[in-house]
Amino acid sequence: MSKVIAPQAQDYSQWYNDLVIKAGLAEYSAVRGCMVIKPYGFAIWERMQGALDGMFKATGHSNAYFPLLIPKSFFAKEASHVEGFAKECAVVTHYRLKNSPEGIVVDEDAKLDEELIIRPTSETIIWNTYKGWIQSYRDLPLLINQWVNVVRWEMRTRLFLRTAEFLWQEGHTAHATKEEAIEETKKMLDVYTDFAENWMSMPVIKGTKTENERFAGALETYCIEAMMQDGKALQAGTSHFLGQNFAKAFDVKFLNKEGKSEFVWATSWGVSTRLMGALVMTHSDDEGLVLPPKLAPIQVVIVPIFREAEQLAKINQVADNIKKELEAQGIRVEYDNDDNRSPGWKFAEYELKGVPVRLGIGPKDLEKGTVEVARRDTRQKQFVPLADIQAHVKALLEEMQHSLFKKALDFRNANMHKVDDYATFKEILDKKEGGFVLAHWDGTKETEEKIKEETKATIRCIPLNNKQESGKCIFSGKPSTQRVIFAKAY
Amino acid sequence: MSKVIAPQAQDYSQWYNDLVIKAGLAEYSAVRGCMVIKPYGFAIWERMQGALDGMFKATGHSNAYFPLLIPKSFFAKEASHVEGFAKECAVVTHYRLKNSPEGIVVDEDAKLDEELIIRPTSETIIWNTYKGWIQSYRDLPLLINQWVNVVRWEMRTRLFLRTAEFLWQEGHTAHATKEEAIEETKKMLDVYTDFAENWMSMPVIKGTKTENERFAGALETYCIEAMMQDGKALQAGTSHFLGQNFAKAFDVKFLNKEGKSEFVWATSWGVSTRLMGALVMTHSDDEGLVLPPKLAPIQVVIVPIFREAEQLAKINQVADNIKKELEAQGIRVEYDNDDNRSPGWKFAEYELKGVPVRLGIGPKDLEKGTVEVARRDTRQKQFVPLADIQAHVKALLEEMQHSLFKKALDFRNANMHKVDDYATFKEILDKKEGGFVLAHWDGTKETEEKIKEETKATIRCIPLNNKQESGKCIFSGKPSTQRVIFAKAY
Repeated sequence: MSKVIAPQAQDYSQWYNDLVIKAGLAEYSAVRGCMVIKPYGFAIWERMQGALDGMFKATGHSNAYFPLLIPKSFFAKEASHVEGFAKECAVVTHYRLKNSPEGIVVDEDAKLDEELIIRPTSETIIWNTYKGWIQSYRDLPLLINQWVNVVRWEMRTRLFLRTAEFLWQEGHTAHATKEEAIEETKKMLDVYTDFAENWMSMPVIKGTKTENERFAGALETYCIEAMMQDGKALQAGTSHFLGQNFAKAFDVKFLNKEGKSEFVWATSWGVSTRLMGALVMTHSDDEGLVLPPKLAPIQVVIVPIFREAEQLAKINQVADNIKKELEAQGIRVEYDNDDNRSPGWKFAEYELKGVPVRLGIGPKDLEKGTVEVARRDTRQKQFVPLADIQAHVKALLEEMQHSLFKKALDFRNANMHKVDDYATFKEILDKKEGGFVLAHWDGTKETEEKIKEETKATIRCIPLNNKQESGKCIFSGKPSTQRVIFAKAY
Repeated sequence: MSKVIAPQAQDYSQWYNDLVIKAGLAEYSAVRGCMVIKPYGFAIWERMQGALDGMFKATGHSNAYFPLLIPKSFFAKEASHVEGFAKECAVVTHYRLKNSPEGIVVDEDAKLDEELIIRPTSETIIWNTYKGWIQSYRDLPLLINQWVNVVRWEMRTRLFLRTAEFLWQEGHTAHATKEEAIEETKKMLDVYTDFAENWMSMPVIKGTKTENERFAGALETYCIEAMMQDGKALQAGTSHFLGQNFAKAFDVKFLNKEGKSEFVWATSWGVSTRLMGALVMTHSDDEGLVLPPKLAPIQVVIVPIFREAEQLAKINQVADNIKKELEAQGIRVEYDNDDNRSPGWKFAEYELKGVPVRLGIGPKDLEKGTVEVARRDTRQKQFVPLADIQAHVKALLEEMQHSLFKKALDFRNANMHKVDDYATFKEILDKKEGGFVLAHWDGTKETEEKIKEETKATIRCIPLNNKQESGKCIFSGKPSTQRVIFAKAY
C-alpha cells in the first residue's frame, strides 16, 4: 500500500493534491492543465450529475446539446462578455494535418476563414440558436440545460479546482418577463443550495456578487459560497440574471400576448467538476476521503477477517446474506474477500477511498453473532448483533449524511468573524485558517480592489436577506448599511 | 401546424432531413457541419445512453474522462492510426485572443509550442495514460468507457449521420492475453447487437470488416450493419481488436504471473449519435417519426376531445386517473389538454413526434366507458373499455416493440439478394432500393476497390459464422469460399 498523504496541518494544499491522486479521483494528463478523471472520481461525479439532473428535470428543464466550437465573431457581440471570456481560450485555426519530411504538420492550405473558439461558456452560440426558436410568447419560457466540457486557458491549474478543460452543466433559459427571469435565477440558486447541503453535506451561503466579481454579461450574479477546512472560500455554483443583454446582442425578440415585439429575458447557471474539489476539502482527513453516503459509489464495504479457508467459507455465507439484504434496501455494497490483500491493507484502502461504513466479520463474530461496524467520519467502531445489522447500517448512513453537514456547519460558524477594524481584519486573513470575515464596505470598486491587493481577500458575496445595520467601511471609514463576506478564495 | 415533409417515395434523403428538423430532433448550427441536438432529440439520445450505459456497467466497465485535446505528436506514434485519423481534424494553434483596431484577433504571441488536436477518437491519449496505470497482471483487465464529443472535419455532412462534431461513447480496454482481448471485442459486439435489436427494434448483421474498411490501427474490426428503408446499409457500431499496436506505440507493458514483462492487449469499441439517424431511417414514415416504445420519451399521449369547458372537466378526471395508473406501471405518459390547439393539430403533432400510443377521450367515450386507442406504427385505432385500458396499453407497448423489429426484419430479408453474375449485381445496386447483395469475392483489395468505383457499393461485412461454399468472385471470376455483403452505405 502506497498511501503517502501529507498531513493537512502541515500543508493543506499538498494534502489535497496527494489525496486526489492517491484516492484515484484524478490526475494530470500529458496536455498542459488538462486532467484525467479516473474511474473512482468519475463514479462520484456521475452521482452528482444524476442528482442534479433529476432536480433540473423536476423543475421543468430539458437537456440539449450545442456545438463545442464557436465562431470568433460571436464573442464580440456582447461587449462585456468578450472582455470576460474570449481572451484566454483555445483557438482552432486549421482543419487538416499533412505528412511532410518533418513528420505530420499543420496543412497551411487548410486555414479556416474565421477562427473557431472552443466554448469557455455557451451563451453566444445558444442565443444565436434561440433566435430561430423563439417567435411568440407561446415559445417561452425556454428551459434548457446541457452537460458538456468547456476550455478556459488557465495558467495556474489545480486538479478539479482550476483546470484548462473541465466538465460542467450550463442552464440557459429565456423568459417573457424580467420578473420571471429573476425568479428562475433564484430558483436555480435554491436547487444548487439544496444539492450542496443535502447531497454534499456542505453548508453554503447564498448571496449576490459585487459588480467586480459578476459574470461577464450579467446584470446580477447569484452564488453559493462554501468554507473549506482551511478557512478559504470556494464558489460552488452561480446563477446569473442576464437581463436582455444577450437577446439584444443576438436580436432575439418575441411577440407578447398583446402582439408587441419585445426582447427576451435571460438567465444562465452552472456548476462544474470544481464541486469535486469542494467535496474533498469539506469533509476529508489525513486518512483519506470522507464522503457523504448519498454520493459514495460504495456505501458499505464488508471485509472478512480469517486465517483458514474454512473460516472464509463460513464468513462468505454471512457476508453474502448481509450484502443481499442491504442491496434490497438500495444500499451500495461491496464484499471484498480478495485473499491477496490483508484486512489491514483493506481497512486503509477503503478509508482512503472514503467508504462511509465498513463491516468486519471474523471467526469470533460468527461465534457471537455480531459484526464490527466502523464509520469512516469519526472512525468509531462498535459491535452490532447480526440480526440488527440491516436497520443499523441504514440508520447510520442517514445519520452520517446529517452529521457531516452539522460538523461542516459548526466549523464554518466557528470561523466567521465580525470585524470592525482593518488591523484585526488583516490579522485574521493572514492566519492559516482565516475563515470568513463579515465587515462593512463602502460599496466601491476601488475599496474592493485595494483590500484585495493588500490582503488577497475578495468579497465572496453580499448575503441574501442581509441584515441592514449602519456602520463604517473597514477600509475607507465611509458609511455602510450592511456587512459583506470577505475571504481568501479558491 | 407547419408539417411539411417530403414523401419517402419521392425523395428519401429530403424526407430524412425534413423529418429530423420538423420533429425537433436536431438542426444545423452556425458552425459548419456542427449540429444542435434539440431537446426532443436529446431526450431520445439520453434514453439510448442510459440503456447502453447500464449494459456497459453490467459487463464490468467503469466510466472515466480523458482530455479533449491531444498533442499532435501522439498521432504519429501508431503508424496506421495517423493515416486514418489525424488528417481531417480541428487543430488548436493558439490560446489567446486580443483586442485590436480590427476587433478581436488571435494573439500571435500566444502560439502553442505543439499544436493540439481535438480528439477524433482517443486511443492515443488513453494509451499514453494507461502506461501509468498498468504495471502488473493485477492491474488487468482495465475496462473503461467514456461518453464524450469528438470532431472529425467532414466535408459533406448530414444531421446525425455525418457531422463534424458528434457525441459517442468509446470503450478502451486492456488485457493480459490475446484471447481475453478478442473475447472482450466480441462481447461488446454482442452488447451492441442486444441494444440495436431489443431497444431500437433494429435487426443487425454481425460481421468483420475487410482490411480496407478496418479501423486505423486495428487487427480486426467487428461491426453490426443495419438496412435502412431505402435499402442502404448503415454501420451501427464497431468493436476493434487492436492487438498490441497501441501498447507498443505507447510502451505499455505489464509483469505477468511468471514475472515476465509483456505488452498489453487492447480493444476499443464505440457507438455514436449516428444511431439516431439509424433509428429514424429504420421505422419512420411520411407522417413523421415512429419510435420503439422503449426509447420513446413519451410513450402514451392522452388527448381530450371536447367543445365545452364542462366536458373538459369530466375528461380531465378520467384522463388524470389513466395517467396515474399507467405511470404507476413505469409508463411515460403526457396528458395534453392545452385548449389553444385542436385535437386534429395534436394528433398530427404527436404522430410527427412518434409517440407510440395515443388515447383519445371524448364525451361519447365518457358515456360508453371507452377510450379510443391509436397505435402509431400501423395507425390502427380501436375502442377499449376504460377498465381494461391499463393492461391493454401495457401489452400494446410490448407488442409494438416486437412488431417494429419483425417488420424491419421482414423488410431486410426481402431485400437480401444472392447474386452470381456481375450484370445482375450492378442492376440491383442501381435500383432505388438496392438492398444487400450477397456475392462471392476473391478476397483482394483491388477487386473491392474496383467494385466500389463502378457501383458505389462497399463490402459491409463478412458475416460471423458465415456459410462456407465454393464459388467464383462476382467481379474477377477467381475462386472464393464464401459470400460477403455488398451494399451502398451511409
